[in-house]
Amino acid sequence: MSGSQGVHALVRRAHEERVLAILRERGGLSRAQIAARSGLSRTTLSEITGDLLARGAIVVVNTDARDRAGSGRPAELLALDPRSGQFLGVDLGHTRVRVAVADAAHEVIASAVEEYPPGSSWPLRLAAGVDLIDRVAREQGIILSALQGIGVGVAGPYPAGGSRADVLAAFSARFAAPVIVDNNTRFAALAEASGEAEAADVLYVRLADGIGGGLVVGGRLVSGAGGAAGEFGHVKVDPAGGACRCGKRGCLETVAAVRPALAAAGVRDLGELALRREEPRVRAAMDRVADALGRVLADAALILNPELIVIGGPLPFAVPGIVTRAGAVIAAEMIPLGAGPLIRAARLGDDDGARGAITACFLQSPLLADYPAPRTPGSLS
Amino acid sequence: MSGSQGVHALVRRAHEERVLAILRERGGLSRAQIAARSGLSRTTLSEITGDLLARGAIVVVNTDARDRAGSGRPAELLALDPRSGQFLGVDLGHTRVRVAVADAAHEVIASAVEEYPPGSSWPLRLAAGVDLIDRVAREQGIILSALQGIGVGVAGPYPAGGSRADVLAAFSARFAAPVIVDNNTRFAALAEASGEAEAADVLYVRLADGIGGGLVVGGRLVSGAGGAAGEFGHVKVDPAGGACRCGKRGCLETVAAVRPALAAAGVRDLGELALRREEPRVRAAMDRVADALGRVLADAALILNPELIVIGGPLPFAVPGIVTRAGAVIAAEMIPLGAGPLIRAARLGDDDGARGAITACFLQSPLLADYPAPRTPGSLS
Repeated sequence: MSGSQGVHALVRRAHEERVLAILRERGGLSRAQIAARSGLSRTTLSEITGDLLARGAIVVVNTDARDRAGSGRPAELLALDPRSGQFLGVDLGHTRVRVAVADAAHEVIASAVEEYPPGSSWPLRLAAGVDLIDRVAREQGIILSALQGIGVGVAGPYPAGGSRADVLAAFSARFAAPVIVDNNTRFAALAEASGEAEAADVLYVRLADGIGGGLVVGGRLVSGAGGAAGEFGHVKVDPAGGACRCGKRGCLETVAAVRPALAAAGVRDLGELALRREEPRVRAAMDRVADALGRVLADAALILNPELIVIGGPLPFAVPGIVTRAGAVIAAEMIPLGAGPLIRAARLGDDDGARGAITACFLQSPLLADYPAPRTPGSLS
Repeated sequence: MSGSQGVHALVRRAHEERVLAILRERGGLSRAQIAARSGLSRTTLSEITGDLLARGAIVVVNTDARDRAGSGRPAELLALDPRSGQFLGVDLGHTRVRVAVADAAHEVIASAVEEYPPGSSWPLRLAAGVDLIDRVAREQGIILSALQGIGVGVAGPYPAGGSRADVLAAFSARFAAPVIVDNNTRFAALAEASGEAEAADVLYVRLADGIGGGLVVGGRLVSGAGGAAGEFGHVKVDPAGGACRCGKRGCLETVAAVRPALAAAGVRDLGELALRREEPRVRAAMDRVADALGRVLADAALILNPELIVIGGPLPFAVPGIVTRAGAVIAAEMIPLGAGPLIRAARLGDDDGARGAITACFLQSPLLADYPAPRTPGSLS
């Protein structure tokens, strides 16, 4: 390869791959959105999308009515040909496995859930997951051999008797596609961050039987050096507090996980909690939960300066006021930062882990390995 | 370009650029280290490095005695031709400007420092910086028009009357090379993280007149959504504590910055603090500093799971026991993570900000824009 023709083709191909990578990561986008993300001029981009449309590599998926300005015509959204790839997300929880399949346009085209007894062994959970995938393929017409990637979220941070390597080995042995394994709460964080806001810096915390969390920094999921990032549940909130399963005392989990929260409120279960949440004793208990949670998230926000904090899990689902009050605690601590982060309840339901696993496939597809995530430059002023 | 010849050339060129990018980021590396970072086979890599050596794009810089095994010959370290690029780092502090110039092999080949009165205006600081650069160029033989990149660190987080945009405009108007501007403490974090340990996930905090910090996640400096990541100084450590300049009460800065630490110890300055650090009252005061610092860093480490925590600044330089004791506090809180991070005192001196600014140039060189940092996959087990 030599001469200007070769260089031109190289540049053109690099531009083309960048456009395809952006569509693979984000699903349907308008030409203006692709231009903003790719840094390509409208003229160059128009040439490239025209060629890709003519070759059938991308398609017009629909028109975006939100972009319609007064008398203008709606902006066309472009996406990869949905038939060009399917991705499988699996969430191996403590009591159920959930699977979802998305096409290259990011539409979920099949999903299912199967319960197993709490405390089931890892071999049983893995077998239930593989069985469920086979059933979804059979009943919902998914061709497993054509999968482009598989993401598997596993409940953590204490996979009793199981390891990431076991899960990776089990799925890699069964399927030809590349497999990504990570914590399911971290995948949920990625799914929440990949919503319409497309936030690049996000804290996500889930108040459930335990307290897990996930961080997205610069558009990428943070694993940490040992794969243990996101342990919001074991930040100390009360040096004189109760014993935690981790061996320490007064961790956030001893205050704001479902069981201690129910005990403090004097109710039996989440249904009763939701019904009685306006009673004084219940309110006071939930205020303590929100205050402890808010302090932990405020400290994290001072250090990470996220644009979005998402609070999820069954406890705030039953008592949405927890999110409001924790948000006020966080806002009060953000003085040095100027504008603080947006704080909201989680939007996705129980399929957040499976959806995030699929998002991780889109982001980490080997085809994308050469492309960094779009980055927003920081500013001091 | 078409056919297998074109594709082969494209792949070859991509491999070649990847090797150059790795050497640009890291300086001298052995072939084995390049192989590990690039994912290329030894055979492919050998072809590529042979060709690059023959063309003079890279050179053998020295041999690494540490790699010498028993009777084996020492591993050759490869680097970009040092003449192929020079990078300028500038650190605009509160009381002095420091500049350093490094060649493409990451060697610092020129440096200087110039003081100005505390509280100097931003225009004065900028003018002093540009003057110092001109002097270094004249006296130490740097050709400014040949610079490949300029990194400028500015003291923060409160640049009174100055903004990132002003600094960027001033340096961009004066020099042809691309300019990166960021907080100087954050650059110091990057410089510490880029030491021999080459840690990808690092927390850095500096106890000085104020308390600043920086985070490196996945080998990249974290700016946060608003450019304000790293505000360790404004995490609350004592709800009943004293008023902070930020408007809140009981921030870490009200306990562990130089002025309150000196007051608690009953000494006038850092010299006296260092001399009297074994006296009971001084020890007790420094223990309180270390305990507060340790708690803040422990919470951050639970959330970010770093492999390394670096504590710098004049206060721990005067009282190294602060690092030891804060490290013990952190270690005690790491129970859920298993192995905790390494905790150490900063190794670099006052030129850490300028060095980090140069490192940022290497990492963010436009030539590198298409290459993500090498990532270590996380693991759950």
